[in-house]
Amino acid sequence: MRIDLNSDVGESFGEWPLGRDEELIPLVSSVNVACGAHAGDPLVMTRTVRLARGAGVAVGAHPGYPDLQGFGRRDMSLSPEELTATIRFQLGALAGIARAEGCELRHVKPHGALYNRAATDKALATCVAEAVRGFSADLILVALAGSALQRAGASAGLTVAAEAFADRAYERDGTLRSRRLPGALLESPQQAAAQALAIAREGRVGTHDGETIAVQAQTICIHGDTPGAPEIARAVRRSLEAAGVVIQPVESAG
Amino acid sequence: MRIDLNSDVGESFGEWPLGRDEELIPLVSSVNVACGAHAGDPLVMTRTVRLARGAGVAVGAHPGYPDLQGFGRRDMSLSPEELTATIRFQLGALAGIARAEGCELRHVKPHGALYNRAATDKALATCVAEAVRGFSADLILVALAGSALQRAGASAGLTVAAEAFADRAYERDGTLRSRRLPGALLESPQQAAAQALAIAREGRVGTHDGETIAVQAQTICIHGDTPGAPEIARAVRRSLEAAGVVIQPVESAG
Amino acid sequence: MRIDLNSDVGESFGEWPLGRDEELIPLVSSVNVACGAHAGDPLVMTRTVRLARGAGVAVGAHPGYPDLQGFGRRDMSLSPEELTATIRFQLGALAGIARAEGCELRHVKPHGALYNRAATDKALATCVAEAVRGFSADLILVALAGSALQRAGASAGLTVAAEAFADRAYERDGTLRSRRLPGALLESPQQAAAQALAIAREGRVGTHDGETIAVQAQTICIHGDTPGAPEIARAVRRSLEAAGVVIQPVESAG
Amino acid sequence: MRIDLNSDVGESFGEWPLGRDEELIPLVSSVNVACGAHAGDPLVMTRTVRLARGAGVAVGAHPGYPDLQGFGRRDMSLSPEELTATIRFQLGALAGIARAEGCELRHVKPHGALYNRAATDKALATCVAEAVRGFSADLILVALAGSALQRAGASAGLTVAAEAFADRAYERDGTLRSRRLPGALLESPQQAAAQALAIAREGRVGTHDGETIAVQAQTICIHGDTPGAPEIARAVRRSLEAAGVVIQPVESAG
Repeated sequence: MRIDLNSDVGESFGEWPLGRDEELIPLVSSVNVACGAHAGDPLVMTRTVRLARGAGVAVGAHPGYPDLQGFGRRDMSLSPEELTATIRFQLGALAGIARAEGCELRHVKPHGALYNRAATDKALATCVAEAVRGFSADLILVALAGSALQRAGASAGLTVAAEAFADRAYERDGTLRSRRLPGALLESPQQAAAQALAIAREGRVGTHDGETIAVQAQTICIHGDTPGAPEIARAVRRSLEAAGVVIQPVESAG
Repeated sequence: MRIDLNSDVGESFGEWPLGRDEELIPLVSSVNVACGAHAGDPLVMTRTVRLARGAGVAVGAHPGYPDLQGFGRRDMSLSPEELTATIRFQLGALAGIARAEGCELRHVKPHGALYNRAATDKALATCVAEAVRGFSADLILVALAGSALQRAGASAGLTVAAEAFADRAYERDGTLRSRRLPGALLESPQQAAAQALAIAREGRVGTHDGETIAVQAQTICIHGDTPGAPEIARAVRRSLEAAGVVIQPVESAG
Repeated sequence: MRIDLNSDVGESFGEWPLGRDEELIPLVSSVNVACGAHAGDPLVMTRTVRLARGAGVAVGAHPGYPDLQGFGRRDMSLSPEELTATIRFQLGALAGIARAEGCELRHVKPHGALYNRAATDKALATCVAEAVRGFSADLILVALAGSALQRAGASAGLTVAAEAFADRAYERDGTLRSRRLPGALLESPQQAAAQALAIAREGRVGTHDGETIAVQAQTICIHGDTPGAPEIARAVRRSLEAAGVVIQPVESAG
Repeated sequence: MRIDLNSDVGESFGEWPLGRDEELIPLVSSVNVACGAHAGDPLVMTRTVRLARGAGVAVGAHPGYPDLQGFGRRDMSLSPEELTATIRFQLGALAGIARAEGCELRHVKPHGALYNRAATDKALATCVAEAVRGFSADLILVALAGSALQRAGASAGLTVAAEAFADRAYERDGTLRSRRLPGALLESPQQAAAQALAIAREGRVGTHDGETIAVQAQTICIHGDTPGAPEIARAVRRSLEAAGVVIQPVESAG
């Protein structure tokens, strides 16, 4: 039994630090690095890739809407051509920095409002998947389990890693509980560890209101911007390993 | 006898057009595409690469200081780490877009204040050359003939294309006459054609004050932002071809 | 009988010119100056205010979404607090530059996607109107005739100038024909002049499909980014003056 | 005996917090608020002005070079027209937000590389002073004690508040010890308090190498981006008050 643990990293910008990347990166098996559009800058990207390479974790891109002030969390209307171009720009920028550090991109996971919209908007999901495939058919696309993006990635011929969340509460329909509602975040490392274990071993997750639903996931996300992210990662890792689950990156079928 | 003709293109941004790229690109053998820092955006870059690929010209990167408002023409103090990172970011971003269009980068030429400073500042020139080589040792570095950047590129083991200008007046010491002085630009296509021919065939150029100096160049620049750029390119091209000079991209020794 | 003629100006950015402001500004009675978010920069704003002051036309602000690459034409989801803050920032920035040029702001007209959304979204319209009033209760709010923004401005106690368009085709329901459909723009100066005259004198406008509808407007817009804007403005002006309509800015009741 | 205590605040941006403004603001008598160019955004500016107004401290502007990624600490070559325009833009933007919060700007203090360059570059200092005066002759200009900016402000007819530093080491020539050298920052609240007291009461400050020099200052800066800024401010305040020094904003003679 195996699972990938991923985390969004490299979200500092210029003088502004964000996240505890040095602690968190060695605890996961894959990192999604911000590409300078919603967060990150060339120097932050360089340092983040170095940390990831040093820790031996898989490096992927975390492209988002070009909205630094809004951290890519504000919905924006980009035309398909604009969206395709900005995704390839961001993938290329990170790949260029990674290449100079002796490292190749393994996967891509959209960020924030782009991730959320691609989960339900079929046309947008197809645009994202095609933008990635045009850049490289070998990249693994990370998409919310059960989402439109998961289906679009498969249709485009990409290897898709379905994603579940250790530290977010679920609704009965399999969607994530909105961050605006109480109880959206699981802040206790124990709760997160239990949820990760249920996902990895049983393909099941408890919902916010006490039901149990099925979730088929190859990768589990631990949010890097939660204050206690390293503690959560440590607890998740320990509980998975204790149960004999192997933590390693998803492999591309490409 | 052969020479490369290059031009800076892809300098539009968002709603703002700049340059007559559609006319100019087919008239040269190499184009330097802005990478989104001082000009260009992901969509402009995509369209520019398509035009260049359609015209069969060599595609290179034109990285500049991250200063859109100043068009990369204002000097800025970046640390060597920042400069290295932004150059690789820009090369990668353009390479990513080019790759999705089935096209590879052949060369790189710094823009504006970065180009000017790298011509005389040895430490900066070395930083630029090493940043490029770390990205790819196969990229040709385009540098002002006789400049610190030309020497730094050679020391770094890169193929360097020394550059001269068809449409700029020269001073006796081989530098370009400052744009702030009268007579800095050769606006007549005939003058530019004569200057290009002297450079390509004889390795000589007439100075602003009537002398003749030696210039060893493998590539000649025609500025894309001059209003009459296509007319100048046409005259230069015609005069070179009439003299039996073959117009083609520089080849990498890498 | 009187009417205001307004135009969006100051939409250049850095090295990129846009519009024929020097010709257009003296032909209208009010200008809406871009404030550095979707277009314009501090230097462009300074020069534009000087032109307007020299021509004796009323100076107003033209705030838009903070999206330079999309020219403020891409819809964005800002929270009410973010929207309020960016509007006041933009009004203040232009007012600061105007003040140093000995000139005061008279009006404010939202730009692009913000203008369009405020025409139908009541909550957003209220947010815009309150943001303006908090900055100054004396500013005139320019809003599409019949729009939610017109009503919100009146509710907020602002003087509102209802706006109609000389160079855009109308639908039967009083909305503007979408720019994506054929015939959305009236490109002939004669047509635009006839439409302006009908609006100013009769409070009526012909629709795209041959009907006539009522439009109550105190100001008529001539788009600055149409190539023939000055020609259209000249024809509109001539036809209004020939009919005895006085062209002058709206006056604040504040 | 009286002195002003000032601190640079509002340096967060978007999702990125910076500084402990809520604790620090009530401890000083004047705050310099970032204006969206090197730090701050419209929402951060709004919240910062509210905090300052609530604490009853004087609100001033802290304009910097338009370089968010470099936090305004990288030197940039702006033309005098560009610099004048961006300063007025920034002053206006903050004044607009402050006005909507019922608060007026009292002073202005340049930030980072702009502050440093204006301390020694006479032409730049004059440009800054004239830019401020054109915006408002009533604004107090905060300038390094003994600097070119102090003289330029006086020549321009502005009230100038000469500034000294509680938490920075001095060299014998009255300049600040470079941040790149050891011992540049006084990190102990006790040391900073002693230095502030010597400046306020005796017009003297001890240098890094054990000398004592004269410093005439009306305002003392406590850096907001030092981790222990509130602790330093508390110690400085306590020691000044215990010695009978009144802490209050400088008054404009304008």
